[in-house]
Amino acid sequence: MTKLQDAFWKRIDDVQAGLLMADGERPVPMAPQAYKDENAIFFIAAAGSAADRAAKSGGEATFHVADPKANLYANVWGKLDESGDSKKLDDMWSAMAAAWFPEGRDDNTIRLVKFTPHDAEVWATESGAGYLYEIAKSNVTKDTPDTGEHGRVTF
Amino acid sequence: MTKLQDAFWKRIDDVQAGLLMADGERPVPMAPQAYKDENAIFFIAAAGSAADRAAKSGGEATFHVADPKANLYANVWGKLDESGDSKKLDDMWSAMAAAWFPEGRDDNTIRLVKFTPHDAEVWATESGAGYLYEIAKSNVTKDTPDTGEHGRVTF
Repeated sequence: MTKLQDAFWKRIDDVQAGLLMADGERPVPMAPQAYKDENAIFFIAAAGSAADRAAKSGGEATFHVADPKANLYANVWGKLDESGDSKKLDDMWSAMAAAWFPEGRDDNTIRLVKFTPHDAEVWATESGAGYLYEIAKSNVTKDTPDTGEHGRVTF
Repeated sequence: MTKLQDAFWKRIDDVQAGLLMADGERPVPMAPQAYKDENAIFFIAAAGSAADRAAKSGGEATFHVADPKANLYANVWGKLDESGDSKKLDDMWSAMAAAWFPEGRDDNTIRLVKFTPHDAEVWATESGAGYLYEIAKSNVTKDTPDTGEHGRVTF
């Protein structure tokens, strides 16, 4: 695992929500729950949402992160699948607060979807003004080498 | 101006960086500086970057915001143009810190670009767990009415 990939998994834990683009729709806010050991990010989705529809057909999706608190900016490309892992849903339920769905954990509009990233562009910046210069510079070249702060990650 | 549009302009001021997609490239982190009275968001871009190239041809761009600190999630669609407003660049220079470009304010690789939004989808959430439920619900329907927290904004 590269230093940048490692930074990605560490910082994604602090991301409250990013924008998930699925099923040909515009990106919408979704809260990620990362499971590094499974190389996967799980989302709790509502039945009928774009994420749910894409997961049913194993569709491609993109997760965008732009979180100054977590110091993480990323475009993550991957595949969505339905998940029937109710133990994981239990874990996420307690981690994410019961306010999510009003009917509680057994709400039948809840869907657990699994996002398996295969590729990402990651900016794992330090906070403060200096990062702006790094970012401005890095925007000029498409394929910046992995310096530990910005680059491509293959999962 | 709707309540949601007002919330957008208030909160965008607290956004350190979002992801700007321009010139057919993947989104890259860019720091916005909003000028509500001009209905515009300015970016300092590096010469040769996608934002700079798009601005030269008056191209369309999308600015994605997913910022838990500012409590703002948004997809903003608009048009990029070159700006020769050196007074504005001076203002932004001091606001954004001189660390941006190493050569200082007169660095000839600096480009000021003006983003004029025409349309947006905005989630102006409250912080805390409750917002997750609102977001999950709102992901199901495409055209949610403007409730003051989530909806379409026309500029």
